[in-house]
Amino acid sequence: MIKTRLYTPGPTMVPPRVLEAMARPMLHHRKAEFKGVVEEVRELLKYVFQTKEEVIILTSSGTGAMEAAVANLFSRGDKVLAVNGGKFGERWVELGKTYGLDVVDMEVQWGYAIDAEKVISALEEDRSIKGVLIQASETSTGVRHPVEKIAEYTRKRGDVVLVVDGITAVGVFDVGMDKLGIDVLITGSQKALMTPPGLSFIALNQKAWEFVEKSNLPRYYFDLKKAKKEAPKNQTPYTPAVSLIVGLLEALKMIKEEGLESVFSRHERYLKALTEAFKEMGLEIFSRNPSPALTAVSIPQGVDGEAFVKELQSRFGAVVAGGQAKLKGKIFRVSHMGYVDALDLLGVVAAVEVLLKEKGLLDTVGRGVSKAEAILLEV
Amino acid sequence: MIKTRLYTPGPTMVPPRVLEAMARPMLHHRKAEFKGVVEEVRELLKYVFQTKEEVIILTSSGTGAMEAAVANLFSRGDKVLAVNGGKFGERWVELGKTYGLDVVDMEVQWGYAIDAEKVISALEEDRSIKGVLIQASETSTGVRHPVEKIAEYTRKRGDVVLVVDGITAVGVFDVGMDKLGIDVLITGSQKALMTPPGLSFIALNQKAWEFVEKSNLPRYYFDLKKAKKEAPKNQTPYTPAVSLIVGLLEALKMIKEEGLESVFSRHERYLKALTEAFKEMGLEIFSRNPSPALTAVSIPQGVDGEAFVKELQSRFGAVVAGGQAKLKGKIFRVSHMGYVDALDLLGVVAAVEVLLKEKGLLDTVGRGVSKAEAILLEV
Repeated sequence: MIKTRLYTPGPTMVPPRVLEAMARPMLHHRKAEFKGVVEEVRELLKYVFQTKEEVIILTSSGTGAMEAAVANLFSRGDKVLAVNGGKFGERWVELGKTYGLDVVDMEVQWGYAIDAEKVISALEEDRSIKGVLIQASETSTGVRHPVEKIAEYTRKRGDVVLVVDGITAVGVFDVGMDKLGIDVLITGSQKALMTPPGLSFIALNQKAWEFVEKSNLPRYYFDLKKAKKEAPKNQTPYTPAVSLIVGLLEALKMIKEEGLESVFSRHERYLKALTEAFKEMGLEIFSRNPSPALTAVSIPQGVDGEAFVKELQSRFGAVVAGGQAKLKGKIFRVSHMGYVDALDLLGVVAAVEVLLKEKGLLDTVGRGVSKAEAILLEV
Repeated sequence: MIKTRLYTPGPTMVPPRVLEAMARPMLHHRKAEFKGVVEEVRELLKYVFQTKEEVIILTSSGTGAMEAAVANLFSRGDKVLAVNGGKFGERWVELGKTYGLDVVDMEVQWGYAIDAEKVISALEEDRSIKGVLIQASETSTGVRHPVEKIAEYTRKRGDVVLVVDGITAVGVFDVGMDKLGIDVLITGSQKALMTPPGLSFIALNQKAWEFVEKSNLPRYYFDLKKAKKEAPKNQTPYTPAVSLIVGLLEALKMIKEEGLESVFSRHERYLKALTEAFKEMGLEIFSRNPSPALTAVSIPQGVDGEAFVKELQSRFGAVVAGGQAKLKGKIFRVSHMGYVDALDLLGVVAAVEVLLKEKGLLDTVGRGVSKAEAILLEV
């Protein structure tokens, strides 16, 4: 008997409560019962985003919400600065170029966080830059970027919007939109929100909505003004993914019941436990300034990284993610977002430990799990 | 005890087999098990589209696939002809204008089908028109447009693509893509495909892919070339709505098990049964050339159309759709797409009959259901 457990940074594991809700008979999206669901979801999304702004629900993966941000905020030729330190930073660059923006591609070595001062200096020096596109948590490298420091600056600039991809940050650590002064915050359903993929979310503050008024790029399905108009009626311009929204309500209720503070400290604890456990086994943590969403670990010299990831799944049911693009075969990534508990994490630590011992990289098993246990279970 | 039944033209009722599949634990979209699901889904989608072309899976509602067609096929300033005889025809016009196309807005009175000759003449007279955008079934009016006649002409023209919104046609009646010579065919998950909303599908033939090569409009999330490249690997460029695709596989298997011919004749029979039953009650069918997807019925003089629709739901659990936009309060629409059986239809006929009698518009009940019964159940 082997149970499959997803330690992948999206999709993540979905609680039975959410799965059960999605298995209920279909609701019609223009009728009262579903509108009631949407009303609750909207309130809870505001709680999770820590904002008083409307959180717009899109039926798409997170990339759709990223495209919505670009296509609704800017105009052809506008200059934007994209922080590019991984596969998702690259996506900002590509999206900007697709829409004919003048993209300042601020590359960061993969595995490192951007220096906030570098962004601020660039904005100071070139007053024509209208937007900063960044990840709060760069999923491909496991790095947390210092969004709060950049926001401290951009919130004082009426002519620059800070657009934060919080896809592996919202519901993981504190990216409170209003208090930090983030202008646009994005997330997806399939990460810390514990719901299957297919929904994305985007909230804009007043400054950002003023940018929307001036933008002239083409958009239809992702037209945010249209969505904002429908939202107070608990409606969406186009048929939404009804069953996913019904499931999401349960997931959001679980987050509310646990409380955001507890959710954040749980993810921090998970990161600490895995970091200490993997270090104890002689492994190197790949990320500088790691995101509490996931732990990215360098594959040791002489180990076939892709085979290692496959073996974790085939022998222990532990589905972790390998590296993407230039990190292929070089790292493995263990997500601790959402519906993951301490025993899940002890399991993946043990599985890694056993493989390392078999490969002659460890003399004994048990040291990693002991470390993790002390952090995770000593209440 | 009142059971809720959706007779709405999307979302439609979802079979328990599909609901159960979606309630299974989450799969990761880059791993073998899910790729196996996608492989089967791709084959079955080709069966349902009646095409050898790749049917691209998008995570969006049907409007997303409509936007994908416009943004991938054309370039700014291109002239296209949109057949506009309802809310979804209007959507083609809006989409074209959003992307800066020169849209020939061929309006048709709501409730009527376009005259195919009119489209063909327009294409003959203005050789600069590069595309025809049309609905096979206009959901807002219940009308079936003569797509096959237009395709007979456009298939001989290498310089014009025929783009067919088959959202309430594919899996309802015969819009076989390859045999009719449709260049681009679109549908969504939440109609005849018996799956919750959140997925859309688009297939392009060789001619259409050549248009894509020449198109220069911005698109990223809906980039079809990128999707086509990933498809043979049973992958999508961005995280797809995994659980919906797992559900879809079951729905497509049901269609395959029943057989497309049987599916088509069932929808025809349903349309006939409702048409005859409603006429028997003295009601007028709103649509000329009705689509087998739904029966659109004019609200009788003196009846409050919106209240009528609400009463059907509150008293009998029969959720039908009212009219949209300028048809608000003037028609009601009963969908017979997908997971609907004869007894479901007898139920909605009876519910309508009872209301009409109470309003003094019928002397007795039973004549409508008798008609429907004879057509639906006399095997």
